[in-house]
Amino acid sequence: MNRAEGRRRQADRAMGGVPQRPWGQVERQMPPVRIISDDQVSAIHLAALDVLGRQGLRVLHAPARALYASAGAEVVDETVRLDAGLVAERLKTVPAGFTLEARNPARNLRIGGGWCVYGAVGGPAYVMCNDKGRRDGTFAEMCDYMRLIQGLNVIHQEGGGPFEPLDLPANTRHLDIYHAQIRLLDKSWQTQTLGHARTMDGIEMAAIMLGTTPEGLCHRPVLLGIINTNSPLQLDVPMAEGLIALAAHGQVNVITPFTLAGAMAPVTLAGALVLQHAEAIAGIVLTQIVRPGVPVMYGGFTSNVDMRSGAPAFGTPEYAKAAQASGQLARHIGVPFRSSNVTAANEVDAQAAYESQMALWGALTGGAHLLNHAAGWLHGGLTASFEKLILDAEMLQMMDAYFEPMATDPGALALDAIREAGAGGHFFGTAHTMERYETAFHTPMLSNWDNHPNWLSKGSIDARTRANSLWKELLAAQVDPALDPAVDEALHAYVTRRKAEGGAPMN
Amino acid sequence: MNRAEGRRRQADRAMGGVPQRPWGQVERQMPPVRIISDDQVSAIHLAALDVLGRQGLRVLHAPARALYASAGAEVVDETVRLDAGLVAERLKTVPAGFTLEARNPARNLRIGGGWCVYGAVGGPAYVMCNDKGRRDGTFAEMCDYMRLIQGLNVIHQEGGGPFEPLDLPANTRHLDIYHAQIRLLDKSWQTQTLGHARTMDGIEMAAIMLGTTPEGLCHRPVLLGIINTNSPLQLDVPMAEGLIALAAHGQVNVITPFTLAGAMAPVTLAGALVLQHAEAIAGIVLTQIVRPGVPVMYGGFTSNVDMRSGAPAFGTPEYAKAAQASGQLARHIGVPFRSSNVTAANEVDAQAAYESQMALWGALTGGAHLLNHAAGWLHGGLTASFEKLILDAEMLQMMDAYFEPMATDPGALALDAIREAGAGGHFFGTAHTMERYETAFHTPMLSNWDNHPNWLSKGSIDARTRANSLWKELLAAQVDPALDPAVDEALHAYVTRRKAEGGAPMN
Repeated sequence: MNRAEGRRRQADRAMGGVPQRPWGQVERQMPPVRIISDDQVSAIHLAALDVLGRQGLRVLHAPARALYASAGAEVVDETVRLDAGLVAERLKTVPAGFTLEARNPARNLRIGGGWCVYGAVGGPAYVMCNDKGRRDGTFAEMCDYMRLIQGLNVIHQEGGGPFEPLDLPANTRHLDIYHAQIRLLDKSWQTQTLGHARTMDGIEMAAIMLGTTPEGLCHRPVLLGIINTNSPLQLDVPMAEGLIALAAHGQVNVITPFTLAGAMAPVTLAGALVLQHAEAIAGIVLTQIVRPGVPVMYGGFTSNVDMRSGAPAFGTPEYAKAAQASGQLARHIGVPFRSSNVTAANEVDAQAAYESQMALWGALTGGAHLLNHAAGWLHGGLTASFEKLILDAEMLQMMDAYFEPMATDPGALALDAIREAGAGGHFFGTAHTMERYETAFHTPMLSNWDNHPNWLSKGSIDARTRANSLWKELLAAQVDPALDPAVDEALHAYVTRRKAEGGAPMN
Repeated sequence: MNRAEGRRRQADRAMGGVPQRPWGQVERQMPPVRIISDDQVSAIHLAALDVLGRQGLRVLHAPARALYASAGAEVVDETVRLDAGLVAERLKTVPAGFTLEARNPARNLRIGGGWCVYGAVGGPAYVMCNDKGRRDGTFAEMCDYMRLIQGLNVIHQEGGGPFEPLDLPANTRHLDIYHAQIRLLDKSWQTQTLGHARTMDGIEMAAIMLGTTPEGLCHRPVLLGIINTNSPLQLDVPMAEGLIALAAHGQVNVITPFTLAGAMAPVTLAGALVLQHAEAIAGIVLTQIVRPGVPVMYGGFTSNVDMRSGAPAFGTPEYAKAAQASGQLARHIGVPFRSSNVTAANEVDAQAAYESQMALWGALTGGAHLLNHAAGWLHGGLTASFEKLILDAEMLQMMDAYFEPMATDPGALALDAIREAGAGGHFFGTAHTMERYETAFHTPMLSNWDNHPNWLSKGSIDARTRANSLWKELLAAQVDPALDPAVDEALHAYVTRRKAEGGAPMN
């Protein structure tokens, strides 16, 4: 049994009989696309340094300002200015790559080089499915969504809570989400970063999960948290608190400016990238001041708005171009790169697919090391969709199959088979085909390749409706991964205590 | 008014008020993706030469065999063997690029380098729209489809008849199609190549269109015709006749083996590419024997079948990978490259979009110089869809916008705007935004960016349904381009005479 066959057999054992690729990351062999020239990368980088050195960033959190000042930044009132020398010095300590631990060591993840992590949707306000439309989320439904994330092999990481469980109190909701992430998944999960308390709760519970203490995590990256600067050029108190707490404990900040060109960023793509780059650098530098050498990522989220309505647009040509240019900027400063799978579509229709495809190709050929919101994102991030989760999982599987290297050994070149089939012959029955047909090609879970009369006779079921059946089939077959009862009990005790203390303060 | 503004204003004048990019080709600045190494390219090339030299091609057309023999090929019965020296010698005369003339010189097309031609769907048996489902096509509907191809700026070329007008007799149908192509379009159009008579009728009518004779076309490429080898390793009589007639008159053969891995080609991708490369080379060599220096293209169409059902699959990961590798193989022998926009989906749903996106990214980043079936293809090529035409036109527009170079001049870097907006400010009202907002971003025709409540209140109209409204709006506004009445009369006389003669013989 060769390696490909082993994979396929593993895939055949996937839950629910739905064909899936096996768990794993595929290393991209190709160099990332360079959508802009090296000179253009330099021009954007230098302009960002100009912004940081002359205009500076407004930092609303006094301890963060003190940290910047301690490293030699110029701090006047709330404005922090970073000169080029300070930036260059602090970027030197950023690791080019790292491994992120999961509850199950077999689920540990590589970040850097040709490796990418696919993290599921995180943070939407709403949940949606074909049957019930868009609505507020509940904890029970959130748990089901997490079970699907656990069950879908192609998704490497849970994204920090797929949607808000609005039936739980806001100040303690994060505790129940963390507990669910650990119970329902043996995969990596993202933590929440809104303020010190929520961030520390994630760190404490991750430590319990791994049988250690927060201090014991300091050299073991296990949590990844998204930090959004308040573009333009502002870092607020909750985000600064989250950033500092994560960095202080050796955990991974993903510094992601929210630079929508034409709104919170210049209307030109290059200008939006200058702003993104300046803000990302400012955040990355702060992590290295807090703890030199702590892993950190460069988040690229530049997109554009519809200038007629002001509506944010995602998965546009501009988005794809910005993603690839962001990868170049991140590599220019030696920081692993985060991008996303995004769409502004309202339904799981052709638009959702083509906008997400634009984002996927931009991000993955642009060298992303974390694809955030990789599966489930709809409505410009306001909604987590059950059917979009399936659509995205299919598209991610296709990208992974695309990135699998092509074999060109003598067996693959198939000269014997070409001779055996002969002119005008066929290959169905050749020995070459018989040996390989079961594992030769990507097997889809969502695509339907029936001919049209057959498709009609089976009820004309489109992709959106097939996705609905698929997630139900997968969910029905999903078995939660075993968790050490002692760990679960310790988590329960932690959550109970923190709830009694009032959870996180409401800002 | 800068260049971008001029473009946008031109776009605003597009038919029906539907926003479109202006007519034109976008030159890709990036080098094509190399999905396989140079060593792998060589391995496939050498294996293909081995096939051509030892196994050979079965050529059913005696005059074609005689042409091969005249150039030094070994011909035994129907088998033609080409040695590596003969192949290398004949490939030397293939032009790396050329210009294809259209009826309207403003519609002339560049092929080669970073330039690509988007040719509309050609050849399906059926037509389909949301209102009436799939059905046999009529001439009247085919004319409407051609009007949309003419009206959609992003489509550069008509693809040889979008679907068969089954209400016309088979032996003379091509004459009415050619006449419609010339009357309804001032753009480039592909000719039919099934046998000598159909091919010569295309050449005669193109000559009339340009006020010249078939001999007068010999150094003016105006027609492009698809030649499919009968994979594996066979060239039949009608295709050989078409190839010879086109090449003899200086017109462009697109040699496209139909190598479905697992059926007419080996089940391994590399093996299918070996077969494709061998057959493509054999056809390309024949064009150069007929007329050294005549433009010719290398067609890559390798895809795979579903090994469980035998159904052909398109827009798969394997397809994308094969398209990029085909581009490398074509460049290796110095021949312009043709790829396609394909899907096996049954509806204009998410699957149609993601399979086509896989094909588009594979083809266009793989350096395709002709994107055949660029718009309208559904059901693995059995059907031309009115709504898919719109979906594809939107996706092509997005690709063109993606390939537009990013400006990084001082104005684009926007340092003044960043200063003007200030920390925590916004860019809507900056002078920088005011000067640029109308032309800053790609304006979609199909994508809907309403927020979800607005989308619901407007009737929850998905992309498939919006595409239906769009083509009707575009068609209602379309005005056929003027044609010199003398030319039209000459074409009419030619068609009348040829019909009286019985048209093309039925094989």
